[in-house]
Amino acid sequence: MVLEVWFLGTSASIPTLNRGLPCIALKRRGELILFDCGEGAQRQMMKAGVGFSKKMKVFITHLHGDHVLGLAGLLQSMGLMGREEELQVYGPEGLGRLIEAFEEALGFKLPYEVVVNEVGEGVIHRGDGYFIQAAYVEHSVPTLAYALIEDNRPGRFKPEKAEKLGVPRGPLWKALQRGESVEVKGRIVKPEEVTGPPRKGLKVVYSGDTSFCEAMVKLSEDADLLIHEATFDDSLIQKALEEKHSTASQAAEVAKLAQVKRLVLTHISPRYQDPSPLLDQASKIFPTVLIAEDFLKLRLSYED
Amino acid sequence: MVLEVWFLGTSASIPTLNRGLPCIALKRRGELILFDCGEGAQRQMMKAGVGFSKKMKVFITHLHGDHVLGLAGLLQSMGLMGREEELQVYGPEGLGRLIEAFEEALGFKLPYEVVVNEVGEGVIHRGDGYFIQAAYVEHSVPTLAYALIEDNRPGRFKPEKAEKLGVPRGPLWKALQRGESVEVKGRIVKPEEVTGPPRKGLKVVYSGDTSFCEAMVKLSEDADLLIHEATFDDSLIQKALEEKHSTASQAAEVAKLAQVKRLVLTHISPRYQDPSPLLDQASKIFPTVLIAEDFLKLRLSYED
Repeated sequence: MVLEVWFLGTSASIPTLNRGLPCIALKRRGELILFDCGEGAQRQMMKAGVGFSKKMKVFITHLHGDHVLGLAGLLQSMGLMGREEELQVYGPEGLGRLIEAFEEALGFKLPYEVVVNEVGEGVIHRGDGYFIQAAYVEHSVPTLAYALIEDNRPGRFKPEKAEKLGVPRGPLWKALQRGESVEVKGRIVKPEEVTGPPRKGLKVVYSGDTSFCEAMVKLSEDADLLIHEATFDDSLIQKALEEKHSTASQAAEVAKLAQVKRLVLTHISPRYQDPSPLLDQASKIFPTVLIAEDFLKLRLSYED
Repeated sequence: MVLEVWFLGTSASIPTLNRGLPCIALKRRGELILFDCGEGAQRQMMKAGVGFSKKMKVFITHLHGDHVLGLAGLLQSMGLMGREEELQVYGPEGLGRLIEAFEEALGFKLPYEVVVNEVGEGVIHRGDGYFIQAAYVEHSVPTLAYALIEDNRPGRFKPEKAEKLGVPRGPLWKALQRGESVEVKGRIVKPEEVTGPPRKGLKVVYSGDTSFCEAMVKLSEDADLLIHEATFDDSLIQKALEEKHSTASQAAEVAKLAQVKRLVLTHISPRYQDPSPLLDQASKIFPTVLIAEDFLKLRLSYED
């Protein structure tokens, strides 16, 4: 297991008995990455047991209440829990003003620094072995979708090549596997001489709220996991167009066009007590699809 | 049953697995009165099934995040649910600015009017057969405690007195019971001639956050139910003093001095997974005490 994805809030606009407001947590190498932070996120985090990692980052897709109203409570609670580590928060223009407004109106002082990064398209963060790419999607306010893209991993080590080049099994093999060059009988052996081609890391994409759009397809290309909003079933396509949301089939179409491995539908309208019509519609277009539920947890791992 | 009290959030500062942030709902004659509105209140309301009454009023004790961060989400959700009826919200100075800040930063427009009443001490609202009295209590920011006080009810009807005055059983008795004067053989009979003394209505008091203070005792006098914060157990009295909260015994002392009928402790620090020490301490001073739990529901009725 190298990357865990926890669905902490999977409703749209209004919470329901079973679904909280949007929040998705990615856990990777001890780091916790939140995509959106709807009201109640901190309590969902407690219930899921994801912890409040010192290595946490928050990425907000857009400034609609259902996606961001849990942020102030989370910030305050982490302060009360004694957090001292700086917290980086990313989102579209206006996020800084929102956090300031909370602070002013509620007079709260945090014992740690919140660094607000108002970002646009492109690579907006480089982390430990991954980067975050953002793209504007189509919604009623400026909205970013995010992709977490891991760096390439070294190619697979080929023992037969190492042996052919006379590298003795042992510490020198380990060094080559770590990506270091070694010297064997006066000749430098480079790691690329004894490994296959570099292997792809994992890619996870989260749509936020969006209409069916080209930008989402492009951002999602070859993703291992696409988490796409599917507010409505196909019968409400007109409403989806008007309100700049997606239907289940539109989300599936993005997954198909982008050739992703797996699709999870989230941001389900509270009108669907039983979301199975959305699953039926999407799976006709893209079969490896799930509907998110609160506390669904996926573990992604490398296939090679 | 004439008045229901629902405990929707009973934690202090940080939610826990079992306790949401402060929110208490009173249901009375189809009206819903909220005392405080911590993060997650709207979802707790759904879980409890109290509904989102058109006849709703919200009373905020003070502008600390844990008591008010659920308000924006509640306002937005009620808008999405199609609310058209004006909503009256009451609280200390700064509440209007807080709601404006939410609206500005999130760009939300509600399809109904929110009337913000920034209030101080005294009778701050007169409703259908009750009024709300506010009093400043002692906390780190201006904080109001609230009492819902029902109007007196007419005295009990005395059939023997009505008969003695020659009022025939039937419509004239009914009129007297409704509080109307009637004419019997040329003489006016007033309701007070055929009823006992006026009877007290119910009184429910909610402390918000407060140190042990005289104002709380005064506001609570003869209450049928006192809902008092008890953030700490008695061993943390120094912390209670510093942070302007109450211990379990202090809450019990208020109940005893004010001669209330029943005490419920709420706003329990998340450090108490098992709050029974607080109950033990309080019950030594005031035996008719409970510790609130989320979704505890009390039904108050008249004793006479």
